[in-house]
Amino acid sequence: MLQDHPWFQLSAITASESSVGKKYSRASNWYLESEIPKDAADMTVLETNPESIKKTGDIKLVFSALPSSIAREVEPSFRKAGFAVASNASAYRMDETVPLLIPEINVDHLNLIDVQRRLNGTEGFIVTSPNCSTYALVLALKPIFDKFGIRRLIVSTMQAISGAGYSGLPSMAILENVIPYIPGEEEKMEMETLKILGKFTEEEVKPADFKVSASCNRVPVYDGHTETVSIETIDDAKPEEVINVLKDFTGYAQKNNLPSAPKKPIVLRSQPDRPQPRIDRDEGNGMSVVVGRIRREPVFETGIKFVVLGHNTIRGAAGGSIINAEALYKEGYL
Amino acid sequence: MLQDHPWFQLSAITASESSVGKKYSRASNWYLESEIPKDAADMTVLETNPESIKKTGDIKLVFSALPSSIAREVEPSFRKAGFAVASNASAYRMDETVPLLIPEINVDHLNLIDVQRRLNGTEGFIVTSPNCSTYALVLALKPIFDKFGIRRLIVSTMQAISGAGYSGLPSMAILENVIPYIPGEEEKMEMETLKILGKFTEEEVKPADFKVSASCNRVPVYDGHTETVSIETIDDAKPEEVINVLKDFTGYAQKNNLPSAPKKPIVLRSQPDRPQPRIDRDEGNGMSVVVGRIRREPVFETGIKFVVLGHNTIRGAAGGSIINAEALYKEGYL
Amino acid sequence: MLQDHPWFQLSAITASESSVGKKYSRASNWYLESEIPKDAADMTVLETNPESIKKTGDIKLVFSALPSSIAREVEPSFRKAGFAVASNASAYRMDETVPLLIPEINVDHLNLIDVQRRLNGTEGFIVTSPNCSTYALVLALKPIFDKFGIRRLIVSTMQAISGAGYSGLPSMAILENVIPYIPGEEEKMEMETLKILGKFTEEEVKPADFKVSASCNRVPVYDGHTETVSIETIDDAKPEEVINVLKDFTGYAQKNNLPSAPKKPIVLRSQPDRPQPRIDRDEGNGMSVVVGRIRREPVFETGIKFVVLGHNTIRGAAGGSIINAEALYKEGYL
Amino acid sequence: MLQDHPWFQLSAITASESSVGKKYSRASNWYLESEIPKDAADMTVLETNPESIKKTGDIKLVFSALPSSIAREVEPSFRKAGFAVASNASAYRMDETVPLLIPEINVDHLNLIDVQRRLNGTEGFIVTSPNCSTYALVLALKPIFDKFGIRRLIVSTMQAISGAGYSGLPSMAILENVIPYIPGEEEKMEMETLKILGKFTEEEVKPADFKVSASCNRVPVYDGHTETVSIETIDDAKPEEVINVLKDFTGYAQKNNLPSAPKKPIVLRSQPDRPQPRIDRDEGNGMSVVVGRIRREPVFETGIKFVVLGHNTIRGAAGGSIINAEALYKEGYL
Repeated sequence: MLQDHPWFQLSAITASESSVGKKYSRASNWYLESEIPKDAADMTVLETNPESIKKTGDIKLVFSALPSSIAREVEPSFRKAGFAVASNASAYRMDETVPLLIPEINVDHLNLIDVQRRLNGTEGFIVTSPNCSTYALVLALKPIFDKFGIRRLIVSTMQAISGAGYSGLPSMAILENVIPYIPGEEEKMEMETLKILGKFTEEEVKPADFKVSASCNRVPVYDGHTETVSIETIDDAKPEEVINVLKDFTGYAQKNNLPSAPKKPIVLRSQPDRPQPRIDRDEGNGMSVVVGRIRREPVFETGIKFVVLGHNTIRGAAGGSIINAEALYKEGYL
Repeated sequence: MLQDHPWFQLSAITASESSVGKKYSRASNWYLESEIPKDAADMTVLETNPESIKKTGDIKLVFSALPSSIAREVEPSFRKAGFAVASNASAYRMDETVPLLIPEINVDHLNLIDVQRRLNGTEGFIVTSPNCSTYALVLALKPIFDKFGIRRLIVSTMQAISGAGYSGLPSMAILENVIPYIPGEEEKMEMETLKILGKFTEEEVKPADFKVSASCNRVPVYDGHTETVSIETIDDAKPEEVINVLKDFTGYAQKNNLPSAPKKPIVLRSQPDRPQPRIDRDEGNGMSVVVGRIRREPVFETGIKFVVLGHNTIRGAAGGSIINAEALYKEGYL
Repeated sequence: MLQDHPWFQLSAITASESSVGKKYSRASNWYLESEIPKDAADMTVLETNPESIKKTGDIKLVFSALPSSIAREVEPSFRKAGFAVASNASAYRMDETVPLLIPEINVDHLNLIDVQRRLNGTEGFIVTSPNCSTYALVLALKPIFDKFGIRRLIVSTMQAISGAGYSGLPSMAILENVIPYIPGEEEKMEMETLKILGKFTEEEVKPADFKVSASCNRVPVYDGHTETVSIETIDDAKPEEVINVLKDFTGYAQKNNLPSAPKKPIVLRSQPDRPQPRIDRDEGNGMSVVVGRIRREPVFETGIKFVVLGHNTIRGAAGGSIINAEALYKEGYL
Repeated sequence: MLQDHPWFQLSAITASESSVGKKYSRASNWYLESEIPKDAADMTVLETNPESIKKTGDIKLVFSALPSSIAREVEPSFRKAGFAVASNASAYRMDETVPLLIPEINVDHLNLIDVQRRLNGTEGFIVTSPNCSTYALVLALKPIFDKFGIRRLIVSTMQAISGAGYSGLPSMAILENVIPYIPGEEEKMEMETLKILGKFTEEEVKPADFKVSASCNRVPVYDGHTETVSIETIDDAKPEEVINVLKDFTGYAQKNNLPSAPKKPIVLRSQPDRPQPRIDRDEGNGMSVVVGRIRREPVFETGIKFVVLGHNTIRGAAGGSIINAEALYKEGYL
């Protein structure tokens, strides 16, 4: 996704010890349908530490897609060395001084960077993007939250196997099956949602004040998390009204023409059996979410329910970090 | 499932015009792994009307697995002719004089048969079994409803392709995909649940008084509907208490040793990633439901959530009708 | 695929009675990930006969993707009315006067058009493209056939569900399964292969003179037919030699820059576990075939075996017709 | 499969270090639909060496399902200690003194045990069962080989994911895909087939003298390897004749009523689209092979082709070892 990026240039790649010193084309197992980009292919993989990066030139921004346990140690070391770290790892998402950013929703959270800089005494900082099942939900929630208010939210997910990583899920476990559990996922959805919809005030982000319940399930789909969402709104939300606020929604990313921003962050489907992951996940090059089946939620006096779909390995992974970095650049943090 | 049944004997098979006059072995497309039973194989398929059945001998009970639109006309004609009709069709499930029966839950509803007989002036009557996604939910609800009361319920389903019938769902539609819509299914779950949990009083069944919301999805699984369930209970329901009431639950079917009754109508799984359709659907020969992940529902002050799984083409189809017929026999209605 | 075509312009769409008079956007069930092209969407569907087409203007070329039984009657009626018919239907593929064309292989067969015109006394003619499992095989065979000669060929296929049409294969039939039979497919592969590799001489195409045996199987893959091929060559064919003749192969389509021609009609994979349909089917925009695992065939003294993959719903369907029409245009037949 | 076995009693279970000392129920990840048998569940897992086994009592027979590299060292150590080793590992299948046994086919190979005993100076010995894709092929070949002779054989397989072990194949690798390569599998099929069909004469097994070529593919199926087979026979083999020799085939296992022997080792299907793994793999409790589509092989003057299916994780794994051990018992080797 960084290939031919108008603002960023790939200057170095780091990895774990077993890959260091190899060409990237040999170090990586490239499973994607597209070819490995030429520039990246020929790079020699470096050690994952600030020093090795600094030697390669004047680099300002590093992307982290590390496992959480490793990110917990590595990301602060890069921050300390003065780098901006755009991370998709979960380690610091809930850290009070770290923005958990979706540029359509909460660019005001970037004010946390000053707090973070002051606290750590360095120009470096960490910015994170949400979990792959959270971002899809929250993008669809934002206009509803702003217009009607939310009191309670129940979400049940049907998540793609790619969310578990290439070797994360044996085929014997999931072919012709459903696994009604993804370790840690429900907690992430329940906490991250409230932080993202929170407001920055007086040096901190105050999380949104409503209740969230998530049930997370794995299904035999490659890419695309599908979620059924039930909401108790504070004000009455008629389906047509909800359709209208979702349809017209754009945010900072669109208004400032971030290069990776989809034209429409929320795409609506009017057919009764959509969105479906296989045919709708690539909307907006995988950077949009797709919403359908907007209807009254009958268990609440003022409620709405719908289905939302997001591409977990594009917007829910690297794409989320890249659009975040674009916001950082636009706002002058790089 | 009727093969070697201790109480019932298969005496005739009827079907639509194109099959009439053929041996059943030739008329049917037998897709099951087991062999077609010898007795059934050699039967000549009759016309679907009371006269053709009456000619074959003294038959008291007919099973109906007709499409709803056909059941709407055919089932009353058999009732009128004096037959007991055990139906899995949806046509008369919500009829006020027709029991919607799960013998573990609401055998008192059989009192409706007298009302029905009186109204139609015939000994014949119709008894129905619930929709394949409803029965699994309601079996798991019954002990919770009795012990704690229910105020609100939100269920999201992941349903097997067999629920759509052998040719119902093209492979192009569902392989590596999710379809977040099943026509009519959500309405059925929302209405049938309340009727089944209702009480028979003064000539009618008063439906249970709480609110239900269903979101129904199709996933690439052969058999077994998996459902995530969120409940607001009236009294506080601690997970351990819920585990206890579910674990010990038995009903009329068990107490009266109905031949098709599973020993345990509700089987609990303690592993965090269970139940799974592929490995748990055959519990109790497909006649039990399997429940797991019982935990607090955080959006309600007094709430519980869990996962339930039922075998849609056994208990959710023919098996439901047969155990109902067994209750009819035991109660002297045949 | 005709959208923005440099040589052709879509002027009319016809279909069966039930669609006539509707806008194409309403008449069609558009299941593709891409949007329905604007021009096509707004066209009114016409009756499938030469008169309705003639009324819409000066149309020279019609594409036929009809079921074989209908093509058998309709295609000659268009030919009689003077149209060039580029067909992907099987009805006339084996007709002695009809070219069965792959523009990389047998453009000399277009000489049959003169024979066909003379015989039918009309400027109109039919040109066909091969069956979706045949074309992939034959493209890979051509350079081997020319260089080493072929005495015997055994092919076993693993074919995608899309080959059966959108509603052709119930999900209950193929999920987690293999169906070792596709009606008529083996005969098509065995006959079409020999015709395509035949030579035009003295007013007719003499089929290639070797023996072919096909075993055709359906597997749960959306798109892409994978085939294992065993060949007895006439001259000794070392794997490295075969790699070389395949790697360098181009044909008429490439030399004449047909707009839909892939740069490389045969793409080689050197990894031992490739080609795989899910990750290799889109090579050359689905217009190339992908070959791998080239190795000695031990049962023959002079033999070779390999795996070939082709995209059945692109090159194996509409794409095959379009590149054929491009050859017709280039050769002055339109 | 050993539960309630009439001849054998489970006395001990061994495993790798990480499991030693635990109850089997805790050491194993039990993924099967059936419950873990009570006796086995409560056993304490022992170290995998002859001493630990000897301590538990008078044990004569050990089953080995070890990875090949470990079997290479462990199995001889048990042999040396005097145990009969019934192995499903590949390590010693091609060893000249080790029987590669299918009790329907080559019980005469048990004579190798005497050779083996003499050579190693111990009563202990190793007997092996074939690879999961080999056994299905060879069972179907045996009657054809005996009646018509075989000159050449080409087989292309579509193998289930369970053949790679529970965690062997990531879901990302195989969902909606085919992998046309299984490391080492083709070599095993080509060599084992000839050894099994060989004759014991003068202290050794002379392999059958024909040529075999295998192409091995992985498909998204849980259990059941489906294989298309093309044979050049020595004598002319009409399809009806082949049907007859297959239909009537029984072997030593049936004649001697081995407890695990299926009544019919080869089950024929007459429907054109059978056998299919999902619906036919459980024939004979997974101990039979299922053959269909028997027809002329057109590339050979005297040839036959067909489809064969075997259950890779029953007869192709533990089931193969157990029926072998039953033959050992019956023949007095235990």
